[in-house]
Amino acid sequence: MLVKNAADRLIETKIKNRSFEPFKGAKKYSYRSKVTDLMTALKKCGLKDGFTLSFHHQLRNGDFVINQTLEAVRELGVKNIHMAQTAMFNVHQPVIDFIKEGVVNRIEGSINGVVGDYISKNPLDFPVILRSHGGRWAAVKTGELHPDIAIIAASSADERGNATGVLGDNAFGPISYSQVDAIHADKVIVVTDTIVDYPCEYQEIQERYVDYVAQVDRIGDPDKIMSGTTKITEDPTKLGIAHKCVDLMDAAGIIKNDMVFQSGAGGISLAAMKFLGEKLEEKNIVAKCATGGLTKLIIDIYESGHVKHLYYSQVFDGYSVNWVKNNLELPADIGHYADPTSKGRTIDGLDTVVLGATEVDTDFNVNVNTHSDGRLLHGIGGHQDTAAGASLCIITCPIFRKKNPVVRENVTTITTPGDVVDAIVTNEGIAINPRRKDLIKKVKGKIDIVSIEELKNMAYDETGGPVKPNRGNEIIGLTKWFDGTLLDVIYRVKE
Amino acid sequence: MLVKNAADRLIETKIKNRSFEPFKGAKKYSYRSKVTDLMTALKKCGLKDGFTLSFHHQLRNGDFVINQTLEAVRELGVKNIHMAQTAMFNVHQPVIDFIKEGVVNRIEGSINGVVGDYISKNPLDFPVILRSHGGRWAAVKTGELHPDIAIIAASSADERGNATGVLGDNAFGPISYSQVDAIHADKVIVVTDTIVDYPCEYQEIQERYVDYVAQVDRIGDPDKIMSGTTKITEDPTKLGIAHKCVDLMDAAGIIKNDMVFQSGAGGISLAAMKFLGEKLEEKNIVAKCATGGLTKLIIDIYESGHVKHLYYSQVFDGYSVNWVKNNLELPADIGHYADPTSKGRTIDGLDTVVLGATEVDTDFNVNVNTHSDGRLLHGIGGHQDTAAGASLCIITCPIFRKKNPVVRENVTTITTPGDVVDAIVTNEGIAINPRRKDLIKKVKGKIDIVSIEELKNMAYDETGGPVKPNRGNEIIGLTKWFDGTLLDVIYRVKE
Repeated sequence: MLVKNAADRLIETKIKNRSFEPFKGAKKYSYRSKVTDLMTALKKCGLKDGFTLSFHHQLRNGDFVINQTLEAVRELGVKNIHMAQTAMFNVHQPVIDFIKEGVVNRIEGSINGVVGDYISKNPLDFPVILRSHGGRWAAVKTGELHPDIAIIAASSADERGNATGVLGDNAFGPISYSQVDAIHADKVIVVTDTIVDYPCEYQEIQERYVDYVAQVDRIGDPDKIMSGTTKITEDPTKLGIAHKCVDLMDAAGIIKNDMVFQSGAGGISLAAMKFLGEKLEEKNIVAKCATGGLTKLIIDIYESGHVKHLYYSQVFDGYSVNWVKNNLELPADIGHYADPTSKGRTIDGLDTVVLGATEVDTDFNVNVNTHSDGRLLHGIGGHQDTAAGASLCIITCPIFRKKNPVVRENVTTITTPGDVVDAIVTNEGIAINPRRKDLIKKVKGKIDIVSIEELKNMAYDETGGPVKPNRGNEIIGLTKWFDGTLLDVIYRVKE
Repeated sequence: MLVKNAADRLIETKIKNRSFEPFKGAKKYSYRSKVTDLMTALKKCGLKDGFTLSFHHQLRNGDFVINQTLEAVRELGVKNIHMAQTAMFNVHQPVIDFIKEGVVNRIEGSINGVVGDYISKNPLDFPVILRSHGGRWAAVKTGELHPDIAIIAASSADERGNATGVLGDNAFGPISYSQVDAIHADKVIVVTDTIVDYPCEYQEIQERYVDYVAQVDRIGDPDKIMSGTTKITEDPTKLGIAHKCVDLMDAAGIIKNDMVFQSGAGGISLAAMKFLGEKLEEKNIVAKCATGGLTKLIIDIYESGHVKHLYYSQVFDGYSVNWVKNNLELPADIGHYADPTSKGRTIDGLDTVVLGATEVDTDFNVNVNTHSDGRLLHGIGGHQDTAAGASLCIITCPIFRKKNPVVRENVTTITTPGDVVDAIVTNEGIAINPRRKDLIKKVKGKIDIVSIEELKNMAYDETGGPVKPNRGNEIIGLTKWFDGTLLDVIYRVKE
C-alpha cells in the first residue's frame, strides 16, 4: 500500500512480503541528569511488593548500599523483597530486621556470617539459592534469576550514569559483577557518593543501561571495604600447608614458563601465592597470567617480571585499588571470567588454583558453605568455577579444627563435587584424587602422598569423629552447580 | 520427588512449586585453540544458502576481508548470501561479480561507490536497506537484522578469540561496530592476520563470543585503511564555508567552556573543526568532549588542552591509530555512541555537529545517499544519529556542484529529515531552519542569514535547475530512520 509518510514521501508499507512502518517524524535527542536520591529512584523505577533487587558485593564488609536501599524500601512501605545480591557480609546484620519486618522474604545470593546464621535457624519463605560467580552470571543472563531493579554501587558516577569503582574516596576496583544485571534488569539504579563531571573517566557501567543515579552520603566504609580475608596467615601450620601446595605444583610439573594461576582470597591460598612467587623467582620462570582477585602480593610478582599479565575481577586491598588507576591491565567482568554459557572464559585451562574448605570428604567433595554444625555461613564465590577451570585444583585445609574433623566421610554440604577436585593439601599430608592417575604418576617419588582415608582416620582419631548437626526437616538453602542443576540442600539448624 | 543426584545426595526436584534439575556430574573446563582458516571456519559454522553474514567497515577502502570471505563462500558452493556489512567501499568491486554469480543476493548495509552504482542499475532480489550506525546497532539488537555468522576483522587476536583493532601491522583503532554482532549472531568468526600470545592486550571483542579465529595472510592494505575522506580541504570556497560554520557556532553562543562537539569525516567538516580549535585557543575555552571519528586534528586540540576528553568510535588516520595505543581515553562502541534504544548515548545533547550533504532541500531535508542522477553511492553513517543528537546540527555544502543544484526544491533521497537539521551553511550564505526561531533570534545582528529559498533560487539561476533523473519503477534501496521506520525509497536508474 502506498502511503505518505511524515517526510512527505510516498512509500510502500509492504515490499516483497516484508512490512515496513512509515516514518512518523524525527525529534532531537537530548539528555537529562539522572541524579536523584535513592528513595525517588526506587519510586520512579516502580518498586513494588515482591520485586527482586540485585546488588554486587564489591564493597564487602564496608558496604552501606544494601542497608540503605532496604531502609528506603521500608520507608516506601514495600514488602516481600527478593534479594539477589552477589554476596552479603556481617555489615548486613540489619537485613535480619528487614526479614523480621517482612521487608525481605527471599534471598537468591551468597550470604556470609550473621545473616546466614539467622536464616539457618529461621527459614525464609523459600530456600536461599546459592550460586557460584559464574553460575549467577549465567542465571541472570538466561533469565532464571531476573532482577526487577539492579542497584549498582559505584565509587564515582557522572550525571548520565557512567559509573566506576576505580575513582573516588570509596574506590574498590573495577565494577565487575553488575554488567549482566545492568543489561537484563528492567530498571537500573547506580548508587554513588561521588558525582564527577561528565564523562566519568572510567566506565565499567555505561549510561546506556542506567535509569537513575542515586546520590547518597556514603556508599561505604573504606577501612572495611578492604576485607580481612586478604591477609597472609602467620600460623606456622597454615604456612606449612602453603609450602606443600607449591611443592605439589612443582612435582606436577606446572611451574614453568607461561603457566596461568589463581589464588583464592583466604590466608593459606595467599601464602601459597607468595611462595609460588618466590619459586618463580628462584627458577627464573615467567608465568603468562594470574587471574582472580588482585592483591599487592600478585602485583609484586607482576612488577618483578614473573607474570606477564593480570586478569582480575576483584581488587582486594588498598594498594591494588590505587595501582589499577594507573595500570589497568586486563580487568575481566565476571562474564568474561567465568560465565559457563559463554564460548570461552579466562579461567578455562587455568594451570592451578588454590582454594580453601570448611570440610572435605573421602570422595573429594568440598564444602565451603556450611560449618559442621550445619549453619550456612559462607557463599560459593568462584570456588566451583575455578575448580572446574583448573587442571590442578588444590584444596587446602587442616585435617581438623578444634574438636571438629575437617576431613570426613561426608561433607555437610557439597559446594564443589569431587569430580573436579584434584588434590587436598593438609597439615598431615597431601591426598590426590584417585581419579587423577596421571597426576599420581607424575608426582610419585617427588613428594609424599597419603590416602584421603588416612587423613580422615587421623582426623577422627584426634577428634573422636564428627558430631551430627542438630537439624530440622525444613530446607533453608540450596547449592547449585554452575550449570543450574541442584547439587545439595541445606537444612534448618535447631537452636 | 526425592531423587539421588550425581553427587550422591538426596534432593527434591520440586520445592514449593519451583522445579529443579538434579546435578548430573561435573567436568573440567579447558580450552582449545580456535585458530583455523577462513574456509574451515565458515564450514564449521554451518554456512549454508541464504545465510546472513555481517562485517564491519573499519578497514575502509583497504579491506580484504569481505572479498576473501565471499571467495571462500563461492569455493564452498554456497549461494544467496545476505550481506550485512556496516559499510562497503570501492575495494569491494568484486562483490559485483559475486552478485552476478548468485553468491550474494541481498544487502542490508551501507554501500559506497561502485557496488552502489551497479545495484542502482541492477536491482537485487530485495532492496538494499540503509541504516545509520545507531539504527543498525538497534536492528541487530532487536533481531530485525539477524546475522547467522558475524565476520569480525581484527588486526590482532589470540588463539582463544580475544581480538582488537589497536595492535598489529594493519591496526585501525578499537573495533567498535561489531560488539552487537558478536553478542547476537549465531556464530562468530574473528578474521586476523596477526595471532598474538594469549591474552591479547586489547580486547574489544572477547573470547566469550567467538567460535573461530580465521587466520589469513593479510586483512587489508594499511595505506588504504586510512581513508582519503579525512584530508582537510584546500579549496578556498570550502574553507570559506568552514569558517562560516564557526561564525555560526559563535553567534549561537555555543563556543563556551564545557561544549561538546563532533565533526563528520568530510573535508569541510574537518576544516570547520580546525577553525573551531583555533577559536577555542583564541578565546581560551576548554571544551568538555569531542565525539565521533578521531583524527590528528582532534588529538592536537586535545593535547593543546582545549578539549578535556575524547570519545571516539572510529580512528581515521595513522597518527591517531598509533596514538590510541598509548592514550586510550574513552573509546565508545557504536551502542554507547548512538544506539537509539538505549537509556543514554554519548551523542545525546551534543552542542554541535558539522555534516555534509549531496543535496539539501527547502524543507531542510538532507540527502547523503544518492547523487542527483539517482545513483546510490554513499551510506548514512552517523548522519542521522548526530543530527538528532546535536542542539545545533550544521549541514555544509556549496549551493551547486558543476551544473547541478545542491540546494533544491526536493532532495532525491531523504537521509536526514529537516525536523532535526538546524542550519545549512553554503558558499552563498547561511540558512537557518524556520522551526528554530530561538536560534534565529540568537544570531540576529551577529551574522547574516538568508532564506533557504534564496539559496535555492541562486542555485537554480546558476544551473538552470535540477535535471530529472532517468529512473525506473523498481525500488533498489530504502533509507530507514534510526527508529526502524521507512523514510524513503530509492529507484532504479536506467542506463
